[in-house]
Amino acid sequence: MDIEKLLSQTVFNSWKSVNQRVSDLIAQLSEKQIQDEIATGRNRALYIVGHLTAVSDRMFPLLGIGERRFPNLDSVYLEHPDRTEVDPLAPADLKAAWQDLATRLTDALEAFTPEEWLQKHTAVSDADFAKDPGRNRMAVVLNRTNHISYHMGQLILTQNPS
Amino acid sequence: MDIEKLLSQTVFNSWKSVNQRVSDLIAQLSEKQIQDEIATGRNRALYIVGHLTAVSDRMFPLLGIGERRFPNLDSVYLEHPDRTEVDPLAPADLKAAWQDLATRLTDALEAFTPEEWLQKHTAVSDADFAKDPGRNRMAVVLNRTNHISYHMGQLILTQNPS
Repeated sequence: MDIEKLLSQTVFNSWKSVNQRVSDLIAQLSEKQIQDEIATGRNRALYIVGHLTAVSDRMFPLLGIGERRFPNLDSVYLEHPDRTEVDPLAPADLKAAWQDLATRLTDALEAFTPEEWLQKHTAVSDADFAKDPGRNRMAVVLNRTNHISYHMGQLILTQNPS
Repeated sequence: MDIEKLLSQTVFNSWKSVNQRVSDLIAQLSEKQIQDEIATGRNRALYIVGHLTAVSDRMFPLLGIGERRFPNLDSVYLEHPDRTEVDPLAPADLKAAWQDLATRLTDALEAFTPEEWLQKHTAVSDADFAKDPGRNRMAVVLNRTNHISYHMGQLILTQNPS
């Protein structure tokens, strides 16, 4: 395998691994756990799952790989704090939405060539991208991988200490 | 800039950005905040900072870029749960250790060529690496970047909710 292919494959593997870990964690949250706050007075697990789902949904237009499916999550889980709006989906439906997005994103990223990884994302202008080619799709995916990890460190607090 | 250089630069930028964010957060933890548990009955912020510092210290031999400086952190922050051993460093000295490692790691990674990013890490055998060239230095750095993000999502709980 050539160098550029191996570099992009290594980044893809990291996305896939993090996405799989958080998908497993989300899938096994009980009905009680998903309603629990991750700590006293902090966000509910449900809010964090909704937040992650909205952010993953927005990756489709941002990466230029498709349309959004769940735009109704933004107001509740991106634009307002927890418990100020009505949850638009039942927990089971939100879990299913997450899994659907995680699978389709991973499939789309797996098909990227090295050149496609380096294409600009859609939130940067041609002029700005010419000045800074680091504002590419890979930068978005690395940012979102770490965003998932950040909130996974919080979701894990719904589990009993090991 | 050629494709392989731009790919590895994008990964480096992600490391640097995450490392800078957590360094800023660690630096501004007050004497009280660093002693606080991140949630009732969970790890102290100090334990998490010790844990991150030990893991970063171990990256030097793992990446083949130098010797460890703080091997005495492992027993307390990697091998035992919080509050079962005596903290080996005062909080101010632990903060300084973290900043020292973060700076030196970032300087070392910035100098890697694309080929150097793809060299094997020292915890994988030649035979295993031949079978799976994905077990390279970049995979280690991506893993550790996400590990930092995971615990940053916990350290942030020491701050007042915004």
